[in-house]
Amino acid sequence: MKPELSTADQAALTSGSDFWRTTAVESADLPAITVTDGPHGVRMQADGGDLLAGVPATCFPPAVASASTWDPELLRRMGEALGDECRAMDVAVLLGPGVNLKRSPLGGRNFEYFSEDPILTGVLATEWVLGLQSKGVGASLKHFAVNSQETDRMRVSADLDERPLREMYLRAFHRVVTRAQPWTVMCAYNKVNGTYASEHHWLLTEVLRDEWGFEGLVVSDWGAVVDRVAAVRAGLDLTMPGPDAAGDRALVDAVAAGTLDGGVLGTAAQRVHNLVLKAGTRESGSYDAAAHHALAREIAGRAIVLLKNDGDLLPLGGQSLAVLGEFARTPRYQGGGSSQITPTRLDDALTEITNSTSATVRFAAGYSADGDTGDEALLAEAAEAAAASDVALVFVGSVHETEGADRDSLDLPAAQLALIERVSAANPRTVVVLSNGAVLLTSPWEARVPAIVEGWLLGQAGGSALADVLFGRVNPSGRLAETIPVALADHPSFLDFPGEHGHVRYGEGVHVGYRGFDARGQAVSYPFGFGLSYTTFAYGTAEATASEAGVEIRVPVTNTGDRDGREVVQVYVGLPGSAVRRAPRELKAFANVPIAAGATAEVTLHVERADLAYWDTRLNRWVVEDGDYVIEVGASSRDIRATVTQRVTGDDARVPLTAESSVGEWFADPRGAELLGEVFASAAGSATAALTADPSMLMMLGSLPLSRMAMFPGSPFTAAEVEKLVLAAND
Amino acid sequence: MKPELSTADQAALTSGSDFWRTTAVESADLPAITVTDGPHGVRMQADGGDLLAGVPATCFPPAVASASTWDPELLRRMGEALGDECRAMDVAVLLGPGVNLKRSPLGGRNFEYFSEDPILTGVLATEWVLGLQSKGVGASLKHFAVNSQETDRMRVSADLDERPLREMYLRAFHRVVTRAQPWTVMCAYNKVNGTYASEHHWLLTEVLRDEWGFEGLVVSDWGAVVDRVAAVRAGLDLTMPGPDAAGDRALVDAVAAGTLDGGVLGTAAQRVHNLVLKAGTRESGSYDAAAHHALAREIAGRAIVLLKNDGDLLPLGGQSLAVLGEFARTPRYQGGGSSQITPTRLDDALTEITNSTSATVRFAAGYSADGDTGDEALLAEAAEAAAASDVALVFVGSVHETEGADRDSLDLPAAQLALIERVSAANPRTVVVLSNGAVLLTSPWEARVPAIVEGWLLGQAGGSALADVLFGRVNPSGRLAETIPVALADHPSFLDFPGEHGHVRYGEGVHVGYRGFDARGQAVSYPFGFGLSYTTFAYGTAEATASEAGVEIRVPVTNTGDRDGREVVQVYVGLPGSAVRRAPRELKAFANVPIAAGATAEVTLHVERADLAYWDTRLNRWVVEDGDYVIEVGASSRDIRATVTQRVTGDDARVPLTAESSVGEWFADPRGAELLGEVFASAAGSATAALTADPSMLMMLGSLPLSRMAMFPGSPFTAAEVEKLVLAAND
Repeated sequence: MKPELSTADQAALTSGSDFWRTTAVESADLPAITVTDGPHGVRMQADGGDLLAGVPATCFPPAVASASTWDPELLRRMGEALGDECRAMDVAVLLGPGVNLKRSPLGGRNFEYFSEDPILTGVLATEWVLGLQSKGVGASLKHFAVNSQETDRMRVSADLDERPLREMYLRAFHRVVTRAQPWTVMCAYNKVNGTYASEHHWLLTEVLRDEWGFEGLVVSDWGAVVDRVAAVRAGLDLTMPGPDAAGDRALVDAVAAGTLDGGVLGTAAQRVHNLVLKAGTRESGSYDAAAHHALAREIAGRAIVLLKNDGDLLPLGGQSLAVLGEFARTPRYQGGGSSQITPTRLDDALTEITNSTSATVRFAAGYSADGDTGDEALLAEAAEAAAASDVALVFVGSVHETEGADRDSLDLPAAQLALIERVSAANPRTVVVLSNGAVLLTSPWEARVPAIVEGWLLGQAGGSALADVLFGRVNPSGRLAETIPVALADHPSFLDFPGEHGHVRYGEGVHVGYRGFDARGQAVSYPFGFGLSYTTFAYGTAEATASEAGVEIRVPVTNTGDRDGREVVQVYVGLPGSAVRRAPRELKAFANVPIAAGATAEVTLHVERADLAYWDTRLNRWVVEDGDYVIEVGASSRDIRATVTQRVTGDDARVPLTAESSVGEWFADPRGAELLGEVFASAAGSATAALTADPSMLMMLGSLPLSRMAMFPGSPFTAAEVEKLVLAAND
Repeated sequence: MKPELSTADQAALTSGSDFWRTTAVESADLPAITVTDGPHGVRMQADGGDLLAGVPATCFPPAVASASTWDPELLRRMGEALGDECRAMDVAVLLGPGVNLKRSPLGGRNFEYFSEDPILTGVLATEWVLGLQSKGVGASLKHFAVNSQETDRMRVSADLDERPLREMYLRAFHRVVTRAQPWTVMCAYNKVNGTYASEHHWLLTEVLRDEWGFEGLVVSDWGAVVDRVAAVRAGLDLTMPGPDAAGDRALVDAVAAGTLDGGVLGTAAQRVHNLVLKAGTRESGSYDAAAHHALAREIAGRAIVLLKNDGDLLPLGGQSLAVLGEFARTPRYQGGGSSQITPTRLDDALTEITNSTSATVRFAAGYSADGDTGDEALLAEAAEAAAASDVALVFVGSVHETEGADRDSLDLPAAQLALIERVSAANPRTVVVLSNGAVLLTSPWEARVPAIVEGWLLGQAGGSALADVLFGRVNPSGRLAETIPVALADHPSFLDFPGEHGHVRYGEGVHVGYRGFDARGQAVSYPFGFGLSYTTFAYGTAEATASEAGVEIRVPVTNTGDRDGREVVQVYVGLPGSAVRRAPRELKAFANVPIAAGATAEVTLHVERADLAYWDTRLNRWVVEDGDYVIEVGASSRDIRATVTQRVTGDDARVPLTAESSVGEWFADPRGAELLGEVFASAAGSATAALTADPSMLMMLGSLPLSRMAMFPGSPFTAAEVEKLVLAAND
């Protein structure tokens, strides 16, 4: 930065000049840059002051859908396309991706997030960032961190232990930061263990920069900053929106008063400066809206998850069709809030289905436009159309999904449930097509219908993508990135979501999503990783090879049907007998493999050694345990097709023995056992011998710290001798 | 205390002189007193140095059994009897009762604790203390606090939030302290939220003394003190065992150095002094061993829970019997560790059954004496005896239950499972009789047998008590004080028991035991509060009346069978729509009512207003919410016979509005709504009006703190104006 920048200019640089722009500094010839909302489209605010009126842009599938592709390459192409649109709209930084975990299916913003699994999230988000930034446009990895609910989101403290924090909630952030270096990271609104993310020095500086090596800028979520001075001190660089003259003054005053290190403010200003300069190298551009629509359609088609297809009812052929439900005509394709895009065009399923067949297509709305109400006339009309057709397609879905509010139920609205019941009664050949940004229960009605298509919120090309899958132009290969439970009360997060009185306890710890269902052996409606195809795949024998980099797994997969298709091969790892509580299986690798009908693919997957580690709270670092890891290769988390056990040599993770180490821990350590054994042996015949002669007394001794044993009458050693033992043990 | 006591004498007084005695101070004419282990017998160490060899004393039923009586009056009589035995053995303080909650059925010391419910625990323990102390012998309420596991018990930190801490884990302690003033409270070994209980000023002083008004002495668990100075500073008075010359010196040095307030040490010494003086008023005495055995038999008979009795197989009549299983001959009647009693006599079920009938009784051991191994010969012999008899009684139970170690399974040993299978195959008229200190799964085998008798660990008269119930001399009225789950993995504590690396997270929060099963709507094998009788009871309509003291419930209960019996009438309360997460139902009152055959009892129960309160973490106090409380009267937690809704007027619990209060909170408050409404109205036509016109934008506004809204462009107020609003709102 030019040395002449005054403290006041530095301070001004660390807050925006308006809702979407940084502050220009004329004295430094520094222009303002524009940042704007993503993540599945460029939400460029139109002139006129209405925050939600946007310049038309491609509405790609929201993350709930793009994650269901399980295809990193598609995410990279989406990122590249978004980069092109940003260049066309002079946007320097696009606010995305959102990599918060879906802790609860009720999370109001789940449609903007990828998964309940951190590796799937991290892999996909990394590609999105690499794609976007390859166009000279910056990403903003958000919301850092532990921002998994909307209830009281501006204040609530996410209270959680360090293992779930590290292993689950920070893991995707870590992956994206270390592999893609996003230009910016956006801090969350909420508190983490009592401290606002915007003022969290440990998060923003110690972890993000010192441990992970983040080189970019930390921007606040819009309105997340409570105290500018505390925020800058913690490592926040840019407060949005602005202007915030009072906050700028507070920073200047704090530097003058010595309560804020001027160098810290200078560094923050420098990072804004660097970002502006970096953004300045971007060339302007344009994009092909038709090509982007086609890409949105391709991703949407790959995102659709075929949940049920009894009797191969799908794909459709030349049958006459009843298309039922207002959402077929008026698509639900994105959620509410800051990610809401004004699309360049909008496909609806009714039109696309009608254009896909020469057979008769009957339509009935079935329920009102709000999705929430219906009446007998609407139901009767739909049932009549269903009865008159070969196949009935019922379009139903969620109605309230928006940033700012969590849901309070996983149920379809009563009017839509009634429609499913009436239509399936009128025609047993009924396909339910879902439109939803987060999990809906299927258990109340799934037995009534032979086929279910999970259509998520698919973006502007969702209508055509659904027709592609229904008619078999696209062979479905989407997989669930989140578990569909039988009941909300089954969910690991159920007992303490969304918290109360300013706090939410993440009581399930590391057992988020499928990890919790598996740990408790609970039934689910559809498991994590699940999705059907119009063809079938057979797995051969899996083989594993360990190296310093991790474990390589090879497995042959054969397309045993008569259609080309894609298989998402998933690798889960467990470690029975681990020193820490772990889920039975955790996703560690996956491959999205096109396989022609009858062909066999030799699939190779890499489990990285670092991904086997747990966070050791005693040593305050990651530790790979020594052990026989169970590696499961499957078509879903509950459809394991091949298992192989692989020995992995662990990290050196000796915990030094201390006076507070227990008798049991001393004996478990080779050097400790030797030393303490000598002491015990020399005490034979004493009170100690009498003590240790009784099995239940011995049991109790095992957990006794040496310091405490020294205080018992009859102890074979004194407190002073314990000190000597400790020195000798760690020599 | 005599003023002349030196600091050194004071320090010496705060540690024991040996394992079981306080320190005498000759200069003050202060003798030593003896304290010794309970809680279900007086474990007076015999001469000879063997810590586990005791002077014979009555082994009453351990708490797992006495709690199953659900009868406060029996607990008081047990306390009185124990007081007599203490007087006979010159014991000043008996170390009990243990009122820790059974957080997990794996807890190794569950047999010494009462229940998974704090009210049941508190009511019963209060009577035990009152009974004991009526004899001039002190109780030691233990283990304070949150000592619900044995794994790493000397160090583990029980990490939990304040609501579960207050509402669940401290609640029984609070009840006993405020209603029975135990002479002493024993601090736990473990840490609570990172601080050793022995050094926990908040626990030992702020809560126990300042809030609850505890007047007695705090003694350490044996070996719990790590740092004498820190412990005395926190409020610990007496460290056991002793002597601890080094610790005494450390106290003297700390007072001299000014790091410990001499007054604090003086107070601790004074409390020991007071205890010794109080103990000195006790008269010596003797007790009638036969009468105490009879009392032990009475309590044991009332503790037995009849879980299943298809076809009224029980009580037994004149049938020929096969008595199978070594535990019928060699009873399991208490657990291992510090509570282990050398009984004055010991009844076994085989002898008592044989003496109860003139019909043929065949015995076969079925498995080896260790309870854990068996062979084909033993099984065949048992099956043969079963086949030859009218009814088979299979005695099975747990084998490892001891202080110092948690269990790792709820399953019977394989040898005993095999015995149940073989015997029930040989004779369908099979009764399983369980001996166990904590829950065992019945789901693996319960469908195979028509009758199950839960016999717990019943103390020295368990054998005769079992015969009393089996032959109908006692009509069973015991009820489960803990849920029997279908599987261990179903349990609320499952995911994080017993923790790792020095910490255990109480992730289920307030949802301990049945609260968690009910909240998730899970199936259980036998619910909390369950137990059959040889007669049946019908409930009439319940009526409720609210007063300042709480709610009085009246319900008529009729014995509809032809045998006299006892019904345990249970009152559960829920508050749908509560501002805090609560279990669907919580036990708030119960009555143990003898009802003659054909008779009707008018049962009156009192729910105390204080027991309706939740702990408000914002106000840092108990709050009774305003609302329609659902009062369920039942024969178990899942056998509700009458329901009544009662309006209760809540406490004044207004939380002052601040700048960090959200727009939604302002509008929810009458004064806040008025003030903010004026501001919003005057902003009509501005950017605010545009903002609030959009429903999803409005949704987001609701959670926005005023301070943060003031920073947004277009805000209808400035930060300075927020300050004025806050002042006006709390005027």
